[in-house]
Amino acid sequence: MITNNVKQADRIIIGIDPGTNVMGYGILGIYGKKPAMIAMGVIELSKIGDHYMRLARIYERVAMLVEQYCPDEMAIEAPFFGKNVQSMLKLGRAQGVAMAAALSHQVPITEYEPRKIKQAITGTGAASKEQVSEMLRRILDIPKEDIHPKLDATDALGAALCHFYESAKPAVAKGASSWKAFIASNPDRVTAGTKKSI
Amino acid sequence: MITNNVKQADRIIIGIDPGTNVMGYGILGIYGKKPAMIAMGVIELSKIGDHYMRLARIYERVAMLVEQYCPDEMAIEAPFFGKNVQSMLKLGRAQGVAMAAALSHQVPITEYEPRKIKQAITGTGAASKEQVSEMLRRILDIPKEDIHPKLDATDALGAALCHFYESAKPAVAKGASSWKAFIASNPDRVTAGTKKSI
Repeated sequence: MITNNVKQADRIIIGIDPGTNVMGYGILGIYGKKPAMIAMGVIELSKIGDHYMRLARIYERVAMLVEQYCPDEMAIEAPFFGKNVQSMLKLGRAQGVAMAAALSHQVPITEYEPRKIKQAITGTGAASKEQVSEMLRRILDIPKEDIHPKLDATDALGAALCHFYESAKPAVAKGASSWKAFIASNPDRVTAGTKKSI
Repeated sequence: MITNNVKQADRIIIGIDPGTNVMGYGILGIYGKKPAMIAMGVIELSKIGDHYMRLARIYERVAMLVEQYCPDEMAIEAPFFGKNVQSMLKLGRAQGVAMAAALSHQVPITEYEPRKIKQAITGTGAASKEQVSEMLRRILDIPKEDIHPKLDATDALGAALCHFYESAKPAVAKGASSWKAFIASNPDRVTAGTKKSI
């Protein structure tokens, strides 16, 4: 039984593994310097026949998660290359809708390629999803009954933990790929409306 | 000077031409059976360096347009095939974010391929964007000074007008995305005479 409290967390990261059939999510709380799992799950989309209804469901559910857990950041697992243009267009839409739910709530986004996440969690970019799940269970000390059986959920939690590790690295190694880094290096681009929320 | 009133329209269609550098939009009002342009314009994105800032801007601006004009439907120009997976992923994200802005306001979406829009407006799917712009000007009786110089804006208005034409077609021809699909799902409706021609 997960007892990690949202209110006691110093920082909350939502990890998302966007897909057009299943979308995984993981909520990671940082307590001091210690990460712990707050929640994980999936948004089932395969039974929704209509493409737009799927996109609408993704938006609604991700927006709900953002409102429920008030994450400080979002980490997305985002493959940059795929089999064909058709599947990439669909994946891009699913990603875009999930991103819109974060951006409309002023939550900054960082994306990570699957290899990068696997590398960060298991030490090898060639690890299987099952290995990622097992390592997450050990690192975050999650009881076996609390780990979600769907690998989309563990992948999403992996994205969140990868983001925690990456953000703990010295700033010089990060570059300007994150929202915060962009804002820091482009203060003139920030409008009065968005400045407050950062 | 455009004087078409939003409040007097029986129905409002927002047309969107999503892109990662420029996003065009067109607001079409239907007065009785007569379509007329209410507004058209572009959302400039090319000067925004950060990818997420672009997506955030698309969401904000499309949501603002939806709140301002309260459209009944959204029509999107959506190419299904592109040069490479990278550009399709980016286009998919831009489309997804624009769609999320509509879906979160319960506005139904229909998408049209560029050829389909050109065909509906000019009579030929091979028409240039300039020809689409000129035909729109004539059909909707838009004064020369009111037609937006950016072809992204006229393309978006074209998507809205194409949607109006499509939705005005007899119900029997709608629903199914193509004649072949319609025949496949309605074999009993095929008479001996038409069957041969398929």
